[in-house]
Amino acid sequence: MTQLLQARKGIITKEMEYVANFEKVEAEFIRQHIADGKLVIPANKIHLAGMLKPVGIGRAISTKINANIGASPLDSDDACELAKMNIALKYGADAMMDLSTGGDVDRCRKNLIDHCPVPMGTVPLYEMIMGNKPIQELTYDDILATCRKQAAQGVDFFTIHAGLLRQHLPLVKKRLAGIVSRGGSLIAKWMNYHKKENPFYTIFDDLCDIMLENDVCFSLGDGLRPGCLADATDEAQIGELKVLGELTARAQAKGCQVMVEGPGHVPYDQIEYNMKIQQEICNGAPFYVLGPLVTDIAPGYDHITSAIGATAAAYHGASFLCYVTPREHLGLPTADDVRQGIIAYKIAAHAADVALKIGDARKWDDELSTARANLDWDKHLDLAIDTETATRMHKEKMLPNEDHCTMCGKDWCSVRISKELKESL
Amino acid sequence: MTQLLQARKGIITKEMEYVANFEKVEAEFIRQHIADGKLVIPANKIHLAGMLKPVGIGRAISTKINANIGASPLDSDDACELAKMNIALKYGADAMMDLSTGGDVDRCRKNLIDHCPVPMGTVPLYEMIMGNKPIQELTYDDILATCRKQAAQGVDFFTIHAGLLRQHLPLVKKRLAGIVSRGGSLIAKWMNYHKKENPFYTIFDDLCDIMLENDVCFSLGDGLRPGCLADATDEAQIGELKVLGELTARAQAKGCQVMVEGPGHVPYDQIEYNMKIQQEICNGAPFYVLGPLVTDIAPGYDHITSAIGATAAAYHGASFLCYVTPREHLGLPTADDVRQGIIAYKIAAHAADVALKIGDARKWDDELSTARANLDWDKHLDLAIDTETATRMHKEKMLPNEDHCTMCGKDWCSVRISKELKESL
Repeated sequence: MTQLLQARKGIITKEMEYVANFEKVEAEFIRQHIADGKLVIPANKIHLAGMLKPVGIGRAISTKINANIGASPLDSDDACELAKMNIALKYGADAMMDLSTGGDVDRCRKNLIDHCPVPMGTVPLYEMIMGNKPIQELTYDDILATCRKQAAQGVDFFTIHAGLLRQHLPLVKKRLAGIVSRGGSLIAKWMNYHKKENPFYTIFDDLCDIMLENDVCFSLGDGLRPGCLADATDEAQIGELKVLGELTARAQAKGCQVMVEGPGHVPYDQIEYNMKIQQEICNGAPFYVLGPLVTDIAPGYDHITSAIGATAAAYHGASFLCYVTPREHLGLPTADDVRQGIIAYKIAAHAADVALKIGDARKWDDELSTARANLDWDKHLDLAIDTETATRMHKEKMLPNEDHCTMCGKDWCSVRISKELKESL
Repeated sequence: MTQLLQARKGIITKEMEYVANFEKVEAEFIRQHIADGKLVIPANKIHLAGMLKPVGIGRAISTKINANIGASPLDSDDACELAKMNIALKYGADAMMDLSTGGDVDRCRKNLIDHCPVPMGTVPLYEMIMGNKPIQELTYDDILATCRKQAAQGVDFFTIHAGLLRQHLPLVKKRLAGIVSRGGSLIAKWMNYHKKENPFYTIFDDLCDIMLENDVCFSLGDGLRPGCLADATDEAQIGELKVLGELTARAQAKGCQVMVEGPGHVPYDQIEYNMKIQQEICNGAPFYVLGPLVTDIAPGYDHITSAIGATAAAYHGASFLCYVTPREHLGLPTADDVRQGIIAYKIAAHAADVALKIGDARKWDDELSTARANLDWDKHLDLAIDTETATRMHKEKMLPNEDHCTMCGKDWCSVRISKELKESL
């Protein structure tokens, strides 16, 4: 039985208890939100038997962040991807997706799952066409067989692009950037070739049955997510979202856990609407967004353009943020790109949690600021989100054991003057 | 006559025309906003006779960004600060502040102004106590003499911390971080020592007369800006803002141009309120904010924590964003820190302009995205906010002359699949 089916029966599972404990809320609160479809615990039974520690995703609890990793046909290997995963975990990734499209994808995935303490997701479609198999040759059986295999390997959530339908294809012609989702573009190609409906949509009930077996959580993919500001909130995007809303209800009715994926590239003023319309259409199912990027002009800095959008998204309703690294649009991220992406998203998620007053999120800020105000550099740096980087930046030009920094030096330090002043007031 | 006095008389100056041309609006539109106190052109007559190109600041036109530079007693020199200024200008700084507290501040300032095509601001208080002069010894005459000297040098705007009053000091005791503004902490120390009112407040009318002479624009400093989330939007901050509102009206009545400075560190959910209350209290005078940082946990990444806040701030009413570099709280920024700070703020300002639909801001996004969708890498990289960095990241592992990147390789590229698909639909 999935977490959802158990929650509906009033059962509080060990995983719900674990999540409740982590979030510092009652287990019954977690159970109720899962039963309502507003919270998921993506926890494949096989991965749970391994090293998975359950993670809850839903707007009622703290914001979670995901790191996409995976080799491409042109770059990286198993060891390199494992190193990226470990960097992402070190800096606070709550989930991981292996999006490999190169190398031995099966071995890479298995290796990552074996070493991964957080939920691991995939886009099973990629494996279905490995080895230069043309997408046109994809069959219903291929889809079911690969999903069954990856479910048995312990993958915790699958991105399934079942919402992009034939009826949406004409809408793509109007777009500036067309289809930028890899899965979405492949399925569109399949539909256009066969003149048939999206195969993932056609066999959606069979997919649900596979998901149910080991409790793999759906992450309903947005094959039509906007790939530039000009395409945001357009007919294609909203048309697909409505189908995702129907599929959410269908999968939940069968007992499957469901998240819904969202944009992408969205102007800052449209983010609130995008979050609210998803929550309405999908009846509060957790929204898993990629950024969104609030401008297209900054390749090389899209961890920043998207962390701005991600903060607004989480504040207005998204509960799960997929990071974007500085190398997005330019190449496969390195381990250091992964670090930068994770830190930008940890900042976005934390800023939203502080703004939403979730749990005791602001305690961290207050503790660090107290250390800062006390000129307690050791504690200040120790509490920093990236102690190594902050320490290096602080020490670079300083003599050891000084209690001030090169910004103002000793006498010009407002913190010191204010500290003395407070004592004399 | 200042720009404000001329605007009130219905005169459209050369500077207003220049700004109107840059912003692609009517000159009369600029004149009216200046006359209403909602737009400033900080343009000292001396600097205008040099190399200054006028810049308009106000919410009716595009968002502007400022780079703080300046040597500290422990680090940097004239050449180094000139290099920082040039990096900031290269990446799009609209204004510059020389906050030097070390070295020959007079020579450094003069040198910067001579080479600076954008408005240059200072905090004159710093020069008043150079050479280890205790703040307690500061006299009214010192204040007027230094302001007069810097005005004659061509400084375009002065940060004047005249709003922090004796009555506010008890409020500081309640704070977690006290006073984090350098100027604010020094003036508080002076007031506490002399048991007298803030000297800048006391002689405010005399200061106005100096500002009028060469049309130096006021930047009314927020000596009580919150230095951590816990202190945001507190009694001290709002109390000072109310005084800044009165001073804005007083200075404007005399014919001085006025901007008002704002926070600092503010939780994301309080940013909209902070922007709206300033616009109300200061009757639409341009709001010049430092970030704000939406979390305190990330020293080393405060260009990001603050770019998130700056985007929200500009969207909700601020028109002038003072950058924060990655080294904020840790040390004096290097030239590369300056680059990172400027780019993060250029992103924030542009994202807000796109969201507010100011001018044709989104054209840049659409052009870059069109190049991206066409797999036109040369144009894509050429249009990037930082072509060098984007090109390096793209090329690092690529063979020359390839029309794809290492993220997906050739066959997995959604942009390529989508391009072919669009042609066949």
